[in-house]
Amino acid sequence: MVFWKRLFNAPETMTTAESPSLQGEILETSKEALRESRIFFSLDRELDLYALEELCDAVGWARRPLRKVKKAIECSFLVVSLWEVRGNRKRMIGFARATSDHAFNATIWDVVIHPSFQSKGLGKALIKYTIKKLRNEDISNITLFADPQVIDFYRRLGFVLDPEGIKGMFWYPS
Amino acid sequence: MVFWKRLFNAPETMTTAESPSLQGEILETSKEALRESRIFFSLDRELDLYALEELCDAVGWARRPLRKVKKAIECSFLVVSLWEVRGNRKRMIGFARATSDHAFNATIWDVVIHPSFQSKGLGKALIKYTIKKLRNEDISNITLFADPQVIDFYRRLGFVLDPEGIKGMFWYPS
Repeated sequence: MVFWKRLFNAPETMTTAESPSLQGEILETSKEALRESRIFFSLDRELDLYALEELCDAVGWARRPLRKVKKAIECSFLVVSLWEVRGNRKRMIGFARATSDHAFNATIWDVVIHPSFQSKGLGKALIKYTIKKLRNEDISNITLFADPQVIDFYRRLGFVLDPEGIKGMFWYPS
Repeated sequence: MVFWKRLFNAPETMTTAESPSLQGEILETSKEALRESRIFFSLDRELDLYALEELCDAVGWARRPLRKVKKAIECSFLVVSLWEVRGNRKRMIGFARATSDHAFNATIWDVVIHPSFQSKGLGKALIKYTIKKLRNEDISNITLFADPQVIDFYRRLGFVLDPEGIKGMFWYPS
């Protein structure tokens, strides 16, 4: 059985020898000897863009020019990726990023968990981790735009829909 | 009578001698000799923070620490201020800013027009100018969170409420 660390009660555990390019917290460690698997958060923005593209392909998102994706990642305030490491194999299984003014507001974009890893609480852990990192930077207003099918997911994480009648709006050429 | 230049049909007019610290377009020029008045857009983020605070006070916004306001302005993607210049006197009469990933998304925050200058089309001009600048930077997804009383204002400018059921959500500690 998989053992889930209590992420937010535990001190931050940095990865060290096994995967030096990863930063962040060990989320899960399988104790099974033959197929040991770890799941890590990383805040590294020197991402393998092809791994990200593969992840986005897996959930059916429209492809975006890698040049622009690279710029968006560089210019986001926070970039969180979630990785499964199994032996020598490293696989991006989740992603989220946030834009911000580095002072008051942040907006979370591009939240994705690989279909094979959904319904395991990883999306919840990813958003909680993102919130924690934003709060650590003293950001008080954390916002996002939620598709209809994930509104309840975000509600359970403490997000409020249209507070005080404030509405999300998108501009299109008129 | 005041003469309103057609901002978006006219080529960009840069300010020169009278107010070298201002950049942007001349929005309005009163031809009345005795109280000549010009209204300028500025993209300069070296703002007088006290002028901004005065403007925000005038619309009754809660005060925010200037240190954080300074950081938010530095770290915004776009900062637009609107100034009235009358003789030697320069006054900030409008403001808006946008966070962005510099590639796909922008979110507009802190839109304000001084009460004495409201209902003159300046808010509309400010948002149109902001949109134009974001579009010039190839940002395709322009978003904002609108208070109930300004939803129709933004709708008239081409903003769509909750497109395809996408909802604005705000996080609060649970």
